[in-house]
Amino acid sequence: MIEKQKLKPISGFPEWTPEIRMVEQAWIDRIRAIFESYGFAPIETRSVEPVEVLLKQGDTDKEIYALRRLLEEEGAGGEPDYALHYDLTVPMARYVAANLNDLTFPFKRYQIQRAWRGERPQEGRFREFTQCDIDVVDQRDIPLHFDAEMPAIVYEVMQALEVGPTVTRINNRKVLEGFYRGLGVDAAHEVIRIVDKQDKIGSAGVAKMLTDDLALDDATIAKVLELAAIRGAKADEVVGGVRALGVSGELLEQGLDELHFVMRELEAYPEGAFLADLSVARGLAYYTGTVYEVKFADEPDFPTICGGGRYENLVGSLLNKHLPGIGISIGLTRIFSKLVKDGKIAPTRKTPTEVLVCWPPGGTYEEIKAAAVALRRRGIKTEQFHEPRKMKQQMAYASNKGVPHVWFPAVGADGAHEVKNLTTGEQQAADPSVWTPD
Amino acid sequence: MIEKQKLKPISGFPEWTPEIRMVEQAWIDRIRAIFESYGFAPIETRSVEPVEVLLKQGDTDKEIYALRRLLEEEGAGGEPDYALHYDLTVPMARYVAANLNDLTFPFKRYQIQRAWRGERPQEGRFREFTQCDIDVVDQRDIPLHFDAEMPAIVYEVMQALEVGPTVTRINNRKVLEGFYRGLGVDAAHEVIRIVDKQDKIGSAGVAKMLTDDLALDDATIAKVLELAAIRGAKADEVVGGVRALGVSGELLEQGLDELHFVMRELEAYPEGAFLADLSVARGLAYYTGTVYEVKFADEPDFPTICGGGRYENLVGSLLNKHLPGIGISIGLTRIFSKLVKDGKIAPTRKTPTEVLVCWPPGGTYEEIKAAAVALRRRGIKTEQFHEPRKMKQQMAYASNKGVPHVWFPAVGADGAHEVKNLTTGEQQAADPSVWTPD
Repeated sequence: MIEKQKLKPISGFPEWTPEIRMVEQAWIDRIRAIFESYGFAPIETRSVEPVEVLLKQGDTDKEIYALRRLLEEEGAGGEPDYALHYDLTVPMARYVAANLNDLTFPFKRYQIQRAWRGERPQEGRFREFTQCDIDVVDQRDIPLHFDAEMPAIVYEVMQALEVGPTVTRINNRKVLEGFYRGLGVDAAHEVIRIVDKQDKIGSAGVAKMLTDDLALDDATIAKVLELAAIRGAKADEVVGGVRALGVSGELLEQGLDELHFVMRELEAYPEGAFLADLSVARGLAYYTGTVYEVKFADEPDFPTICGGGRYENLVGSLLNKHLPGIGISIGLTRIFSKLVKDGKIAPTRKTPTEVLVCWPPGGTYEEIKAAAVALRRRGIKTEQFHEPRKMKQQMAYASNKGVPHVWFPAVGADGAHEVKNLTTGEQQAADPSVWTPD
Repeated sequence: MIEKQKLKPISGFPEWTPEIRMVEQAWIDRIRAIFESYGFAPIETRSVEPVEVLLKQGDTDKEIYALRRLLEEEGAGGEPDYALHYDLTVPMARYVAANLNDLTFPFKRYQIQRAWRGERPQEGRFREFTQCDIDVVDQRDIPLHFDAEMPAIVYEVMQALEVGPTVTRINNRKVLEGFYRGLGVDAAHEVIRIVDKQDKIGSAGVAKMLTDDLALDDATIAKVLELAAIRGAKADEVVGGVRALGVSGELLEQGLDELHFVMRELEAYPEGAFLADLSVARGLAYYTGTVYEVKFADEPDFPTICGGGRYENLVGSLLNKHLPGIGISIGLTRIFSKLVKDGKIAPTRKTPTEVLVCWPPGGTYEEIKAAAVALRRRGIKTEQFHEPRKMKQQMAYASNKGVPHVWFPAVGADGAHEVKNLTTGEQQAADPSVWTPD
């Protein structure tokens, strides 16, 4: 016997009972169907990458799980260092770089897979979790239309899954970088990194860090904070608001044109669904243009549930080529576990079984099996009760698992089949070669 | 830039191009559908278990990958030891033990998930691989009918996937243990472990080990080898063959009755599909009754592609309860990669896209998008070409990815939609609100 302790859940590694897993599985099927409806092709990558590949792409403040062979002799050496991937973007970039000659570009892939982070578990933060990603990578510039299409696809997914109201905040790194440069700040990336913390430390905290870490003067800091305060759904107003701050520069103008285009494309969506928010930066170092982050509209303190953006150099940096990309990632586990916790996932069945063929008194195994085989052959999910038990126990089994129908197979030469609908309680004669569940 | 070396495949961690992954994904969908058609419910377990749980269940000669947090301070301690699971049976047993009160018994689950072993990669042996398992666990004795149903379901899967002829070898641990005990051998489990190596070391090797390790006499060894030589498809003949060896005992008789029942149930299947083989033992310590192993019929040297059996104590040993189980596992990666390697997987498409809406000369983004939206809304997998390019390039893109149809959206007020079938070359007028791909 193992200590009871060892059987307990491990914090940050979620597991579901079958009735909940069936809902999660249905979610994944729905996400897959939507991704495929836009022509994204499925790939999976291995779960591990060389440690060097994972660390190179920044995000090194995330804890990474490295692998160690348990029976390996101490100091045997020779084995390269591998670690579990912490997202699906970096592995996808490596995959594209490694398979360059076998892929057709623009390469559009989706990937629904687990990832791991050794973070301290807390609400919405897991150590093992499933991400659902779409990305487009090309060997030439990627049209800006994709910048609007990616968050629109994710919006469609959120609507289909009925997760409740969400808001997608959109910004553009070129606007931020161009604006800061226009202010005469060289360390634009450092400013982005600090402004990205505004959610957590507030404007005052950002101002303090900009003073302490970067020695920016008060006038510059005021402008940085004014920019970060701009948000709105209307492309013209938002871009006008930025221009009104009186900063200029080529990169800034390019970023504003892009942000304007993307917001215009999304103006037809319901109010509140998409918002330009000049405080959004995304922590990851590799983004270069449009960035997204999606939150539950009514839960501002809950972490981001989807995120992504445009990265011009992530893939290409592995090969020294021009391979721009754009992508967005759905934090499936974060969203799903939140809804489970809030009691918004209402499972009804513990099994996919549509009909349980029971073992009636006096019936033979062959009679029961024949009915089950006939139903199953017609595509009906059919479970066969494998031993003669009291009918009450067999009915309780069906009822406890949420099986909607119980089949009473014909017994003996004169027997007739009957089926009972456990929801309505109705029982009637039925023919296994034609009957269909409601 | 990363060293080229770091982009290369990692031995034992397979990855597929999209066109191959699409076939693998279709396989998994098919397996899921068959498992669900028998009423198995889906679960997934976390990828890690406490090291103690993994090691307890034997199979310790398999290398296990433990996790190590990369940024953890040396000697920080406190963190329990977790490792990646090496199969799906032990995690399922732990899951059942942990969720005992939330499950309805008999608990029938399927699980399609990755597992990891730090083995030296070789043909058919991977470090990361996907298994497809079904198991039944109950709080009371499990009827013998399941012992016949489990390999029959796997046979149905192998037929559906068209993997080529397979042979399922069946034995019963009680027959082996009862027979050895009847010979007066106390170390029955040690004999099983040694006989299991017959495939690799031959009868002479087995005889030598039985002499050297267990000091069995020649007459006993002769009987052990005679038993291991018995095989056949007919229940009566096989059981008669064992009885003719003149060994007796209660456990042996019970095992022979079980083996007879299972083989009789399977006699209706095509010749060669199921074979009783008294040399089959399965390496894992937890099996107690029926055991299975499936191989490619024409590839005797290729490793086992599916395996399983009955385990009376695996789950219960975690809780000190009676929780017998029976299950079988399909080595998806092993089977699939073999067929890929042999050129038996013939992918036709690199994308799920059914129709590419091209960007014709003079067309606007809105016109192209409108056609794509109309088609997609009707459930057709539709990709939209996101920039105006030469038609030849757009057609080449569709053709390279294996997209079967290209849509030419209506341009201008008088424009009309047309669609081209890239297989037949036919092009004709079409209405996006009614057209359906062939």
